Amino acid sequence: MVDTKTKDKEVIKKLETLGQTLVQQINKGDNPTMELPVRSLGNIFFDQKTRTIKLGDKTSERQFLNIAHTRKFMQTTLVANEIKKVIQQNATVSIRDLYYALKHTIEGTQENTFEDQAESDPLIEDIEASLNLLREELHLAASAKGIIAGDMVVQDGKDVIDLAKMGSGGWSVPSNVEEDRIEIKKMKADYVLFIEKDAVWRRFNEDKFWEKQNCIIITGRGQAARGERRFVQRLSREHKLPVYALMDADPWGMYIYSVIKQGSISLSYSEEKLATPDTKYIGLTVGDVEKFKIPKEVTIKLNQLDIKRLDELKSYEWFKRKEWQNEFNLMKEKNIKMELEALSKKGIRFITEEYLPKKIKNEDFLP
Amino acid sequence: MVDTKTKDKEVIKKLETLGQTLVQQINKGDNPTMELPVRSLGNIFFDQKTRTIKLGDKTSERQFLNIAHTRKFMQTTLVANEIKKVIQQNATVSIRDLYYALKHTIEGTQENTFEDQAESDPLIEDIEASLNLLREELHLAASAKGIIAGDMVVQDGKDVIDLAKMGSGGWSVPSNVEEDRIEIKKMKADYVLFIEKDAVWRRFNEDKFWEKQNCIIITGRGQAARGERRFVQRLSREHKLPVYALMDADPWGMYIYSVIKQGSISLSYSEEKLATPDTKYIGLTVGDVEKFKIPKEVTIKLNQLDIKRLDELKSYEWFKRKEWQNEFNLMKEKNIKMELEALSKKGIRFITEEYLPKKIKNEDFLP
Repeated sequence: MVDTKTKDKEVIKKLETLGQTLVQQINKGDNPTMELPVRSLGNIFFDQKTRTIKLGDKTSERQFLNIAHTRKFMQTTLVANEIKKVIQQNATVSIRDLYYALKHTIEGTQENTFEDQAESDPLIEDIEASLNLLREELHLAASAKGIIAGDMVVQDGKDVIDLAKMGSGGWSVPSNVEEDRIEIKKMKADYVLFIEKDAVWRRFNEDKFWEKQNCIIITGRGQAARGERRFVQRLSREHKLPVYALMDADPWGMYIYSVIKQGSISLSYSEEKLATPDTKYIGLTVGDVEKFKIPKEVTIKLNQLDIKRLDELKSYEWFKRKEWQNEFNLMKEKNIKMELEALSKKGIRFITEEYLPKKIKNEDFLP
Repeated sequence: MVDTKTKDKEVIKKLETLGQTLVQQINKGDNPTMELPVRSLGNIFFDQKTRTIKLGDKTSERQFLNIAHTRKFMQTTLVANEIKKVIQQNATVSIRDLYYALKHTIEGTQENTFEDQAESDPLIEDIEASLNLLREELHLAASAKGIIAGDMVVQDGKDVIDLAKMGSGGWSVPSNVEEDRIEIKKMKADYVLFIEKDAVWRRFNEDKFWEKQNCIIITGRGQAARGERRFVQRLSREHKLPVYALMDADPWGMYIYSVIKQGSISLSYSEEKLATPDTKYIGLTVGDVEKFKIPKEVTIKLNQLDIKRLDELKSYEWFKRKEWQNEFNLMKEKNIKMELEALSKKGIRFITEEYLPKKIKNEDFLP
């Protein structure tokens, strides 16, 4: 395992190299220029080899002596410099902290370095993408909303944390779960269950589903944040655990699943380190309505927005598999969607005691 | 300490009494009638004695034989009955689960018991208010978003959880933190710090502020949920810990503070059990800008909505104290607001190493 100090040194070296290159260009009398990956849609693709969304190899130049680039150029160097200082101080800050730390009126002018955070955030992404570093490796905290429990022990700093002893609360997933921060000390689970909604997660935790079924339960409370996604990737890669996703049967739940599985367009440059391509979709599906005799009253009619989103999903390359196209067609044909909580119609513990165990036993998944 | 079983029996008894009263009315040939507290604004007031927002004693009747009431009457009895079943099954469900569990087409009609959750939620509140029970006591889970850490040990079921050993993650605050669920086993902290934003909480947790300052740190990630608020109330009441709130210097942060301190209008009927009237506002204030020489660039001009909200706060009875009126006037006069992250301008650790310790030492609070 790489320790934090060694890793930090490598990151600082990368940042310094970026600065030194600019100094050399200045000394040679050249126009200071950074080469940055293009992060627009035209350079993003689904990579069949890694089975994740990925950034292509198109790059563009940001030049100090190009008046259209000068402000952004100055800002990029400020951001890189501040990140270096944060790492040297052994701290982690949010991207909003970073913005405020850098905001000032440039001496002798009326001009501010930054006007708002929308100016600094994309430059952080430029640095992440061009140096091929995760935001976490730059000591920048992303928001993390997740909760986790299960038969597993982690070490986080000096604390040894037993995720089987978190009571009704659960452990709040940290923002940075890289190997140098979180060490997985003991792992006894057979699989990971990724639950879309925290209310449903609480139901599973209350019933100690993870104990009975020998699994890890995690929720991202809606769209999963980086921390949760990276943690699940580690469980999949390092411990070869199957990952099952339990989502609402609607285009939004299915999209959240696809982000866990192959990533999102906006984080394309980091998806190899965040996505878990072996994730399987365990439910809900529209097909479940007949399979489990779920009363029609608890299904919901699709609205205009659902149908529009459904058509978008149908067209995504990573949803081209026959099983998914069938599910989308069925959803459209039946004109229904369904929330996880709808299963409560069949009894409070139907979801934990009948639905899930049966789905897993029959390997009744979508790919 | 009351154990869960005894408590559950009492709650079930209250629910059964509600039902038995209706049966008696039917047997006598009377019009079945429930008496319910009025939950509209006209019956809500700030109680100087409890120093919380409270529901008054106006009531209204819901009658089965009043055609305008019949549907709601039927729904209220369905909700009460389902809650009883949930408690008897030793389960906790979300209010959405409850809605779905109850939704069905009434036999021999085309009519559904409920059309959407907006129909069942207010009836839950009616039952809470009329039986003077917390939602948690009815085994209904509210969403909880909070994270907590500090030198304190709790017992939750069989699990003994040391909140000083939660690493960078923290313990996710459960939905139900009543005495019969969460027992506070060891408490070594001197005070509670309630932090508005989770990114700021993470900064404090990373610096182990709670260890150095001997306190508990908790965040509600914006507007605090019931779980966090009730837990803080218990720390204040049972352990006499002072509670300090650390919020953005804007009308929204100050409103979140006021909800922690005296409650909200929408939960008026439960505020005696949720609010912590001894909470003090430690910051940020507009006065801090001069006191701590915070550069003007990191303050933000008030917008129209801020000014409107500010005027509303000024008019609230619980903000009538001179100190608050001065703060609101200063905010308006200077025409600025400020986020907690703005303190990063003074250095990454300024907030944990200088700002907070100085404020506490000087007892520089707003009431």
